[in-house]
Amino acid sequence: MMPVSALMTDLYELTMAQGYFRFGLDRPAVFDMFFRRQPFGGGFSIFAGLAPLLEALRGLHFSAEDLAYLESQKIFERDFLDYLAGFRFKGDVWAMPEGTPVFPQEPLVRVHASLVEAQLVEGLLLCMLNFQSLVATKAARVYEASHGGTILEFGLRRAQGVDGALSASRAAYLGGASATSNTLAGRTYGIPVAGTMAHSWVMAFTDETEAFEKYAELYPDKTILLIDTFNTLKSGLAHAIPVGRRLAAMGKSFGVRLDSGDIQYLSMQVRQALDAAGLTDAKIAVSNELDEHIVRELVAAGCPIDIWGVGTHLVTGGSDSSFTGVYKLVQKQVGGKDVPTMKVSDNPEKSTNPGVKQVWRFFDECGSPLADLVGLHDETVGTARSWTFHHPSVDSRSFSLEARGEVRPLLSQVMRAGELSAAEPALADLRGQTLKNLSALDLTYKRLLNPHLFKVSISSRLRELKLSLMNRP
Amino acid sequence: MMPVSALMTDLYELTMAQGYFRFGLDRPAVFDMFFRRQPFGGGFSIFAGLAPLLEALRGLHFSAEDLAYLESQKIFERDFLDYLAGFRFKGDVWAMPEGTPVFPQEPLVRVHASLVEAQLVEGLLLCMLNFQSLVATKAARVYEASHGGTILEFGLRRAQGVDGALSASRAAYLGGASATSNTLAGRTYGIPVAGTMAHSWVMAFTDETEAFEKYAELYPDKTILLIDTFNTLKSGLAHAIPVGRRLAAMGKSFGVRLDSGDIQYLSMQVRQALDAAGLTDAKIAVSNELDEHIVRELVAAGCPIDIWGVGTHLVTGGSDSSFTGVYKLVQKQVGGKDVPTMKVSDNPEKSTNPGVKQVWRFFDECGSPLADLVGLHDETVGTARSWTFHHPSVDSRSFSLEARGEVRPLLSQVMRAGELSAAEPALADLRGQTLKNLSALDLTYKRLLNPHLFKVSISSRLRELKLSLMNRP
Repeated sequence: MMPVSALMTDLYELTMAQGYFRFGLDRPAVFDMFFRRQPFGGGFSIFAGLAPLLEALRGLHFSAEDLAYLESQKIFERDFLDYLAGFRFKGDVWAMPEGTPVFPQEPLVRVHASLVEAQLVEGLLLCMLNFQSLVATKAARVYEASHGGTILEFGLRRAQGVDGALSASRAAYLGGASATSNTLAGRTYGIPVAGTMAHSWVMAFTDETEAFEKYAELYPDKTILLIDTFNTLKSGLAHAIPVGRRLAAMGKSFGVRLDSGDIQYLSMQVRQALDAAGLTDAKIAVSNELDEHIVRELVAAGCPIDIWGVGTHLVTGGSDSSFTGVYKLVQKQVGGKDVPTMKVSDNPEKSTNPGVKQVWRFFDECGSPLADLVGLHDETVGTARSWTFHHPSVDSRSFSLEARGEVRPLLSQVMRAGELSAAEPALADLRGQTLKNLSALDLTYKRLLNPHLFKVSISSRLRELKLSLMNRP
Repeated sequence: MMPVSALMTDLYELTMAQGYFRFGLDRPAVFDMFFRRQPFGGGFSIFAGLAPLLEALRGLHFSAEDLAYLESQKIFERDFLDYLAGFRFKGDVWAMPEGTPVFPQEPLVRVHASLVEAQLVEGLLLCMLNFQSLVATKAARVYEASHGGTILEFGLRRAQGVDGALSASRAAYLGGASATSNTLAGRTYGIPVAGTMAHSWVMAFTDETEAFEKYAELYPDKTILLIDTFNTLKSGLAHAIPVGRRLAAMGKSFGVRLDSGDIQYLSMQVRQALDAAGLTDAKIAVSNELDEHIVRELVAAGCPIDIWGVGTHLVTGGSDSSFTGVYKLVQKQVGGKDVPTMKVSDNPEKSTNPGVKQVWRFFDECGSPLADLVGLHDETVGTARSWTFHHPSVDSRSFSLEARGEVRPLLSQVMRAGELSAAEPALADLRGQTLKNLSALDLTYKRLLNPHLFKVSISSRLRELKLSLMNRP
């Protein structure tokens, strides 16, 4: 990944930072990153973007050009500019592993740093985590809808900017896609790359037959013919079958791609014709503005589809183009003492949870998540006894849960004093872990529409702290 | 802008390119970039992203690392890899000026290059132009809805990746935003930067009064106080007014920001209280998931709002997160002769317009656009006489238009043999031109919902060519 300038921050972070610096407030602080609402009307999200974020944090600094630019704005004083010249992120970061199914109101990341450092990285942190979590979640939804099918991400041309495309490819793969069409993403992140052919290939030759034959000649091991340039059944399929037969005779695999028309009707017709021609191994790939809902419909209709090409909706989120992650101060230092802090809002669900926290996930005997408990980080939460889960909005609702299976703390330290605490996991391993996590998650949470609400509660101690801060004059 | 690797392309472009190279098809070709559907259900789009694209095209090459990666894929042969090692984009590019209101089915960009070169840049070209046009269009809609108000773009934390944020800031400014919060975008593109304060500033001090006083002390010329951390009217506003009075006594300007609650109710209450306190010059800034529809509602309700902070929806498009630009082969060379080509689809509106084309915009006597005529580039279209406008789907509909005002060809050459044909206009000038273009566009095309359809027709000669290709056996 290309290094990111520390200037990748909102101006108000810099003006506030100068204030903290000037007024002696640049003291240890703790911020939580959490989100408020599941995207896509879904029941879970997949946390992603951590490794690229940590990489960016490690290299973060202001270049001479950045500093000259800030000086030219005429609102920053010499001593603060000198401070920025030596700025490095030296904080601690705790985070959930990428690929974790996550739920609103629980901290996904916790940053311990000086107030200035913590504030300056807010925009970058949210930008990277929000976007990759959005795309990983969309990918997981498409993957689930396809019943674990082969998903080829090819969203480059509709992605939101160059890095929007690259990080989308990473997150889509992490969330369940099998490969990307973006060659640079392949090189950068080690994602498998794949692709078929475009209409322009077919149009560049004298006719469809020549275009297909030449392709098969050049790529006998990777031939997937796009058959809808003129007429899918009468022209494309008719011209593809002889090519497929020759490849089959050589013991090669072969496939066709549908990119327009009614996919349900055409995929069934094409399958029938391929089978009738003895090409029972031939694969059918489909594309054309697919999303999880269309995929689910086609799967439910029994369409014989082997490969799903998904672009626009996967890399941008489609109709839900942002993940609602926010970053809030939960502890500050006053007079050398750590003081938990919270934002009290007229909307109870917009009030934040104060203090340094941990999230414990309770699993059943089979390893399926039951509920999450957000508590203070120094609480001891184990399997020993029954636990009280309080409603996060601090009303009177609560329930008890006896820990029958594993109780796993989800936040672990990933950065210490600005350096990685552990080696970064390989992206393919993160993808494997995501699919394992997805498979353990009860089906009711994975429904596309109106899913079961996974409970995120607060512990008795956190509830007491929250109440004491809310009732403070 | 950071240089972009030529590997920023879909794998199939590279595999097809190797085929063209191998089969002697790497001959001069022409591709059109056009789009199919207005985003946001609107009546116009604003074309954007050209200057960054041209800059990327000029620097495009494969690094040694890129080539090693391609070699490792084991599908590329030595002679093609050697060709890629020397690859540079040496084509000609014709394009509309950034900031032009554009409509479906007309070419926005025309690329003349060898088939391989033209194909390899497809993904990058579409990625950059699609995304910036999406955001510039959204910005123009918000600008129109605000009746030319002051729009502060602050979408960094919800943008789609690092470059997604940067190019969104550029496009938002070009489309009508007044400033960005993204400091790096400010430095990179020379966009004015602006910002207020976050809740964390208020929470970092002992109380709201101290937080406000300290801010005003540090930034007496730029004080906009965020007044909703605890309670907007009872706490925030009450604490802000004394600070505002002191600033006013010093002859300084001052403002407040609302970031939650009912903006209509609160902005009116706040205005009343500020006026009653003699702070009639105080500005009211608002934010919180704004888009053009909310802005229009608040303007229609007569809310006294001076500054609109717009983030998520502006930089991602919100519910419409992609611009439907495509890139299609319109001419190839066969036996040394240029041959117009087209994709014929079962959906007439998905059939493409063949050949090398120009777009003429007909204006009325007052400079307001009337209709666009797409014709062949060597047609002479002027003000001399009445012109026939044929429906683009080649049915029998047509109408005549007498050229009463200017008839302007919209595509001009911006790149010759891989080098810029003219100096790039300054971004602030492009913004000025956009606003001028917007103001000339009839109100009926600018309605947010169900707008008047701006007509894009084809000339008689283009119609004949299209018919001759469609009826070819």
